[in-house]
Amino acid sequence: MTAPLPPGVSAEAMAGTLEHFRRIVGAEWMFTGEKVESYHDPYPIANDDTRFKAHAAVAPSSVEQVQEIVKAANASGVPLWPVSRGKNFAYGGAAPVLSGSVVLDMSRMNRILEVNEKFGYALVEPGVSYFDLYDYIQSKGLKLWLDVPDPGWGSVMGNALDHGVGYTPYGDHFMMQCGLEAVLANGEVVRTGMGAMPGNNTWQLFKYGFGPYVDGIFSQSNFGIVTKMGIWLMPDPGGYRPYMITFEREEDIEQVVEIVRPLRLANVIQNAATIRSLVLDAAIFSTRSQYTSEKGPISASVARKIMDDQQIGMWNFCGALYGPPAITDALWTVIRDSFAKIPGAKFYFPEDRKRRPDTLIHRADTMRGIPKLTEFGFLNWAGGGGHIGFSPVSPTTGADAIKQYRMVSSRVREAGFDYSGLMAIGFRELHHVTVIVYDKTSAEERARLDKLFRQLVAEAAAEGYGEYRTHIAYMDAIAGTYRWNDNALMKMHQTIKDALDPKGILAPGKSGIWPKHLRGGGNA
Amino acid sequence: MTAPLPPGVSAEAMAGTLEHFRRIVGAEWMFTGEKVESYHDPYPIANDDTRFKAHAAVAPSSVEQVQEIVKAANASGVPLWPVSRGKNFAYGGAAPVLSGSVVLDMSRMNRILEVNEKFGYALVEPGVSYFDLYDYIQSKGLKLWLDVPDPGWGSVMGNALDHGVGYTPYGDHFMMQCGLEAVLANGEVVRTGMGAMPGNNTWQLFKYGFGPYVDGIFSQSNFGIVTKMGIWLMPDPGGYRPYMITFEREEDIEQVVEIVRPLRLANVIQNAATIRSLVLDAAIFSTRSQYTSEKGPISASVARKIMDDQQIGMWNFCGALYGPPAITDALWTVIRDSFAKIPGAKFYFPEDRKRRPDTLIHRADTMRGIPKLTEFGFLNWAGGGGHIGFSPVSPTTGADAIKQYRMVSSRVREAGFDYSGLMAIGFRELHHVTVIVYDKTSAEERARLDKLFRQLVAEAAAEGYGEYRTHIAYMDAIAGTYRWNDNALMKMHQTIKDALDPKGILAPGKSGIWPKHLRGGGNA
Repeated sequence: MTAPLPPGVSAEAMAGTLEHFRRIVGAEWMFTGEKVESYHDPYPIANDDTRFKAHAAVAPSSVEQVQEIVKAANASGVPLWPVSRGKNFAYGGAAPVLSGSVVLDMSRMNRILEVNEKFGYALVEPGVSYFDLYDYIQSKGLKLWLDVPDPGWGSVMGNALDHGVGYTPYGDHFMMQCGLEAVLANGEVVRTGMGAMPGNNTWQLFKYGFGPYVDGIFSQSNFGIVTKMGIWLMPDPGGYRPYMITFEREEDIEQVVEIVRPLRLANVIQNAATIRSLVLDAAIFSTRSQYTSEKGPISASVARKIMDDQQIGMWNFCGALYGPPAITDALWTVIRDSFAKIPGAKFYFPEDRKRRPDTLIHRADTMRGIPKLTEFGFLNWAGGGGHIGFSPVSPTTGADAIKQYRMVSSRVREAGFDYSGLMAIGFRELHHVTVIVYDKTSAEERARLDKLFRQLVAEAAAEGYGEYRTHIAYMDAIAGTYRWNDNALMKMHQTIKDALDPKGILAPGKSGIWPKHLRGGGNA
Repeated sequence: MTAPLPPGVSAEAMAGTLEHFRRIVGAEWMFTGEKVESYHDPYPIANDDTRFKAHAAVAPSSVEQVQEIVKAANASGVPLWPVSRGKNFAYGGAAPVLSGSVVLDMSRMNRILEVNEKFGYALVEPGVSYFDLYDYIQSKGLKLWLDVPDPGWGSVMGNALDHGVGYTPYGDHFMMQCGLEAVLANGEVVRTGMGAMPGNNTWQLFKYGFGPYVDGIFSQSNFGIVTKMGIWLMPDPGGYRPYMITFEREEDIEQVVEIVRPLRLANVIQNAATIRSLVLDAAIFSTRSQYTSEKGPISASVARKIMDDQQIGMWNFCGALYGPPAITDALWTVIRDSFAKIPGAKFYFPEDRKRRPDTLIHRADTMRGIPKLTEFGFLNWAGGGGHIGFSPVSPTTGADAIKQYRMVSSRVREAGFDYSGLMAIGFRELHHVTVIVYDKTSAEERARLDKLFRQLVAEAAAEGYGEYRTHIAYMDAIAGTYRWNDNALMKMHQTIKDALDPKGILAPGKSGIWPKHLRGGGNA
């Protein structure tokens, strides 16, 4: 396949720009031809092979190189698709929305610029992974904990900018972001918050600085390329006790969520805990074929077999207690007494799970910020190894939880997939993340998934549920559901986009935001 | 005095615009002539009587009226200065940076649109004061607590948008903001976050929505007029215990702050606690003349007299414990043992202060979110009733605290004022707020204060300390200290300003951001 060109860019202009990039970074950091394949979507859904294909990739090693690349792109109109590490495989990996874009691969910029134990923060470049930061902290013996999402190889910065979540009390990653540096489309470098004061001493300590608080406009956007970011880290809490509570019936989710809401609001549940469905937990440490050879969603009897075998429930609440025993004992009493009202609820600390320690031990690590990749064991559940997340936000009420569960699971099962989901507990809402595992080698299955996904987006929106994040293939569709008052917010985004990036070279189509010359065409 | 005209606006154009405004809101809600005086800075510093003077004020009652006003202003180029309630007297009240602006007084838009007990939030219009919201919650018997700053008459929305702080665990008001609606300079209405989804059910539950998180650009800015805002409210914690710890020596502040930092980071100190200087606490319930008739800053012997009389220290740490006794007892043990290391530290619960209950009782109310105006008793300290806040942000270290205290207090005393300050404890930084009380009727004292303030800004910036908020007279000066990389951040603000408000009608000069046609002149 010849490398696609972006609209309006001639082969000559592209060649000249790539030559320019090559001079900036050196030939070995310019990727074309077969080498671009590693930047393709690892789990593509669309069967149209021309979509989401980068033309090339360029990997700078410094902010100055990023500035030069941006200036060169601006001169020729070649669009860039910046990725921190491009490891967010369920959402498109490193692949661009607009075919022909050049991936700006920031993974070489992987310096941990500072880890401050006294104040609990790190200042990192885009290429720093959770593994990197964790290893650094361990090697220095610092009394700080990370908060990690499931992919430990992901970028600390990229995850926060994409509004990712983890499992400790610091689970809302963007809330823990403090101060950043970005290269704008004109090549200028800005620092936000206190970073705008020369010689300041609080860039990673105070978010707001003076004047408009702008950090958020660099998240899930294409308004600039973030090159440094501060992230707050939790001090070692001086005690840790992970636990798991299993519930036997599908419909228990309603009561579970009603119990969760006030406990989370009161900070009795201290962390970004999760309520995980049977198949999601089962799939991490087993495969479907161990339990059944039937096609289609698993039956009730198979579900029961899995529950018994793995000592898990139809829903599994995984949380943790943080702090000295005087505090955590008091919290646990409240938690246990609250959930004990649900018939069949079973309570486990790690020592109670001698027969099947795996599930809780796995979560015990992530809930204390140890990066891993274990979660992706679920890819082996059904074979074929593709997966995608459908992630609507919901109020933390039992009625919404069961409604969401029924809406999504019935559609997923109708389409022939197993329902495998979790409800991640935010402060006042839950992210209902349904992981759909599919056979990426099957064109038929991909087409079925595509249809299902669009149906899920539309049906959720009709009930007032919106997605917080998505795969590159659905950015337009989801942005289109945030259309209040004749798309007023998107129009404002476009106004800012046109002002900051008039030639539209930064990540065209990201989050549904297109530059002026590509608007209307869209990718939806 | 004739009403000033803004640059570039003729008397005729202004008259026509005011007539247009009058038709929109009705004659009774259009204020000109003497009626504009209530919008002047109540504590002016500059002796130049032409500065910071509104031409008129207009008070709409609905979003639609705001849209119409904005469109009319855009047509004629008349600048608007939006205020929520305009009660932030230490920072300029309702007065505009640019003389001749028309104050857009939003205080009539004072509906409490929703208070949700289950999820702990309110959705309010700009005119809703802390008193209003508190009364509403009490009248309905809702188990929710507010977080209030000292001026209880202030706007809940305005305070959050100005990055104001309070005293409970919800003390960072902008962090607790969730979802807003704003009228842009073109008259369009946008809703942010989940508010952009028609029929959504999580506008006040989840901050980020999909795509760029833009709420912050409406804070401390002139990019839009916020007409609705969500704010998270704390559920009744089920227990409350305010306390006060007094320290005898000036230099104790160093050790106090070193103890505070890890306790706050670990959430052992649960709230936005404050460390308050002798005169600040003394001034609330007494006057200077009760203790001395000497001119200039108080002497050491007078300080001792005040300490003994009022049962306070040179520094007074006011905090509170929130939650059931099992939790708060455990926290208190750690707090007490930590501070007991400082010689002369005295510990008080309210019941321990029978002789002088006033100071702690006052703070006990604000630390549990009861709005008041008691704090402003300090205005009577020296007579003449003006005050201003100098508010640099500092790392939470003992070394910074004592350095800040020495820098600021020595300059303040050199200029002939008493040092009266507090250190408000954020998550990782402290706001060192020095309240300078001055005689607003004395031109000489005002000139002295102006010189002092500019010196404080410059000297703080030279050491890397920046202000988080300021009086209208110093917005340019302070914005000028955030000048990293040739004012890159300000240039970005200006680019966004020009895109969203090309005619520059919204709050010219706010936070140092001027529209294109007024740039360079400045007010510094």
